[in-house]
Amino acid sequence: MSSLILIPINYLCKRGLKFSSNFLSITMKRIIFTGFSLIFYVFGLFAQQNDIKDDDAFFIRSIYDKALTEGQCYNWLEHLTTRIGGRLAGSPQAAAAVEYTRQMLDTLGLDSVWLEPCMVPHWVRGDQEQVRIINSGTAGTIDLKALALGNSIGTAPGGLVAEVVEVKSLDEVDKLGRAGIEGKIVFYNRPMDPTQIRTFNAYGGAVDQRVNGPARASRYGAVATLVRSMTTKLDDVPHTGVTVFNDDPPIPALAISTNDAELLSSLLKKERLKVYIFTNCRKLEDKLSYSVVGEWTGAEFPEEIILVGGHLDSWDIGGGAHDDGAGCVHAMEVLQLLKRLAYRPKRTIRCVLFMNEENGLAGGLSYAAASNKKGEFHLAAIESDAGGFTPRGFSVDGDDLIFNQKFKKVIEWFPLLEAYNLSFNKGGSGADISPLKSQKGLLFGFRPDSQRYFDYHHTAADNMDAVNKRELELGAAAITSLVYLIDKYGL
Amino acid sequence: MSSLILIPINYLCKRGLKFSSNFLSITMKRIIFTGFSLIFYVFGLFAQQNDIKDDDAFFIRSIYDKALTEGQCYNWLEHLTTRIGGRLAGSPQAAAAVEYTRQMLDTLGLDSVWLEPCMVPHWVRGDQEQVRIINSGTAGTIDLKALALGNSIGTAPGGLVAEVVEVKSLDEVDKLGRAGIEGKIVFYNRPMDPTQIRTFNAYGGAVDQRVNGPARASRYGAVATLVRSMTTKLDDVPHTGVTVFNDDPPIPALAISTNDAELLSSLLKKERLKVYIFTNCRKLEDKLSYSVVGEWTGAEFPEEIILVGGHLDSWDIGGGAHDDGAGCVHAMEVLQLLKRLAYRPKRTIRCVLFMNEENGLAGGLSYAAASNKKGEFHLAAIESDAGGFTPRGFSVDGDDLIFNQKFKKVIEWFPLLEAYNLSFNKGGSGADISPLKSQKGLLFGFRPDSQRYFDYHHTAADNMDAVNKRELELGAAAITSLVYLIDKYGL
Repeated sequence: MSSLILIPINYLCKRGLKFSSNFLSITMKRIIFTGFSLIFYVFGLFAQQNDIKDDDAFFIRSIYDKALTEGQCYNWLEHLTTRIGGRLAGSPQAAAAVEYTRQMLDTLGLDSVWLEPCMVPHWVRGDQEQVRIINSGTAGTIDLKALALGNSIGTAPGGLVAEVVEVKSLDEVDKLGRAGIEGKIVFYNRPMDPTQIRTFNAYGGAVDQRVNGPARASRYGAVATLVRSMTTKLDDVPHTGVTVFNDDPPIPALAISTNDAELLSSLLKKERLKVYIFTNCRKLEDKLSYSVVGEWTGAEFPEEIILVGGHLDSWDIGGGAHDDGAGCVHAMEVLQLLKRLAYRPKRTIRCVLFMNEENGLAGGLSYAAASNKKGEFHLAAIESDAGGFTPRGFSVDGDDLIFNQKFKKVIEWFPLLEAYNLSFNKGGSGADISPLKSQKGLLFGFRPDSQRYFDYHHTAADNMDAVNKRELELGAAAITSLVYLIDKYGL
Repeated sequence: MSSLILIPINYLCKRGLKFSSNFLSITMKRIIFTGFSLIFYVFGLFAQQNDIKDDDAFFIRSIYDKALTEGQCYNWLEHLTTRIGGRLAGSPQAAAAVEYTRQMLDTLGLDSVWLEPCMVPHWVRGDQEQVRIINSGTAGTIDLKALALGNSIGTAPGGLVAEVVEVKSLDEVDKLGRAGIEGKIVFYNRPMDPTQIRTFNAYGGAVDQRVNGPARASRYGAVATLVRSMTTKLDDVPHTGVTVFNDDPPIPALAISTNDAELLSSLLKKERLKVYIFTNCRKLEDKLSYSVVGEWTGAEFPEEIILVGGHLDSWDIGGGAHDDGAGCVHAMEVLQLLKRLAYRPKRTIRCVLFMNEENGLAGGLSYAAASNKKGEFHLAAIESDAGGFTPRGFSVDGDDLIFNQKFKKVIEWFPLLEAYNLSFNKGGSGADISPLKSQKGLLFGFRPDSQRYFDYHHTAADNMDAVNKRELELGAAAITSLVYLIDKYGL
């Protein structure tokens, strides 16, 4: 019952403020202060409470019942991950995924299903990468588990050999400068912080090494880069992901498994090491590809669009089950469930499966550009791109003024969704929908439990056996419930 | 911020009230009513809020940091599940688990470690069970995946053959009576309800078939019982568990996998079927065994005991990782973490690893009897017996009067624990600690996410690879935080 008090602390924590000595003192004071002001606000809310009808609770319960008994999302995901597989933009698998999901959306009885074109980068991995310590006096020759990063270039056909210099940050590379970096392989080895409760915060605190580290090393003449895989788990599974070179000359850039990063680091404490690297990954010509869109037109306010989406592309290794096959089938399931429940939307509900989130965002950018050109208005956009785990709630984002106005409405839905362990907090939504922010609607990010996400993220292990059917279905039900409330009450 | 409103609905739901038409109307009215009364209550709470010091937030943060960086629970669990394995009461593995955990507790620098004796039943599975449909006109001879239930008796050495009658409930058996049951194999096939959000509620709604179904069938002359496995998942993995005969004559009783239950049921719709059953499981003489206890004596109120525990025994198949190796290593980790943090307890903290929860509760009953004899007082007892998944909070139980008094104190801790996604609600605690209720302390059940629990429960799949290290560690940190608060502030 003291949850009046607990909302602010939870709220502030989730807004990314870390626990620190000063912060906590301030937080406690804020709690007291905010608490009192809330009490008066609450009187207003009780007056509004009658607006939330019993039939909303029933409809949401029926959404969950359908999702848990007649859901299609698990079967769709099985097809996407197992029969089609890794779906990197420009690949035949990505094209197959476009066609498969278009056909599945066609079966749902929507008003319109179409493909939204976009030009996507076409990067290919080529042959199996090789990363080998060749001169360890203590350990001999050792092969490391490695994956080239997206946008990496290949080595010469015979590979390259150079000495390794270990760093913990981009700043350290700046300090070492050309004298310390030129001709060497830079090895980024700052682990993700295991003490973060939400693993995405730990990822956010380490991923600059993968995204910007290779470019920074290249600026000072490095011949290649190795990056410790982005996971708190110690294992033999390398995690790929995108790296960005911008104006710096591209160089070969690869991730190595966390176990191998630990090994390499421990050997470097004892001896100077040379490593052999081979990869023939390369960028081909950009290709025409598509985001897939299914639309169900609203009866009363068809111009107000509620978008629900995920991204159809994934990395080439593994099945892209949690990233982001789960998000795609979540979005498709929203329409399937509402159709099965004979729902009649007031507003236009649009399922969008974006292409090329992983290495370019071409789908998200093209979709927003086309939407702006048509003068559309997305009242809300919800992206599921954090895996198919047990739902925890939604982050909510928007233009500041818009957020403050519209979040009040969302707060009124707390009681209905809290029964399903869902909460809301301010925070980023999703990469694909972020270009829609300028339309001044509200953006939502689906937030499931994050503990297992980085066991699989961007790896060959992100397959169907990592997905629990009930957890996936509960995610679809959570998102469908939010879509229902937005559609019924607006924002 | 309207969470003032949401607490009651969540609260009522978790108390086991199901959503139904009438209920929801009542709930909504209660929300309005309770909400207003809460507002006045809240003023009092804010005044108390200063009691919760910043240093509590820091200490809890340091518990989490230690658990996620220097936790031992995952390694201990690896030993219990992989090196020792299934630990059914009376087995050599159970004896090994007693010795291993006693030695591990001995390393923690506690004031006392001892074994609490108890006489346990000694049931053994014997050879691989066989359940075979022998006369299907459409499908021929089919072997079903089966496991004998604990307390089942064996068949004759050559097995038995009888016609199968499918039922959905014990009531149906009563209705069929001796005329419909005698000489037959009764097949209980009511599935767990997949629409329950908390899977334990679904288990609670179906498990009477396994626990009491065989006895009921025996009462009317059935020669054996088959029970659909207790899981919502459709797969080939049979789930064992205890069955109880009391005054009815024991008969062979086995669980079959859900896929095989579906198959058997679909065939029975078309034809009369005979099934062959063989098992030589049997009960041997009761054996002396032990619960393992480690005690850290409090400096100020040593007579107030805070118990934290799990059960050391498991079923014989699989490693007993989630059920309940996880609970044991959670309890051990509480002491390890508080020791590492140089904590000085005011009250006595006792880790108890109970023997024989699965098929007798001898450990829990003996422990409570010995404790009562010594005139002890357990201020609080916390059991972890719901798996090593991401923590959601705690259920709280107690004698009615005690609960109403003491739960107010617990409510004051909400703000500190909510930052870690923990909540409290009224509900049952744990089987092993339930006999301590008469000491009039408060009983807590650790509640992690429940979605995956019945994928593994009582199966050969309940092994280390089903446990995520971070999820396990977060559970230990959650329980340790609660122990810290109870120790510091009392109840």
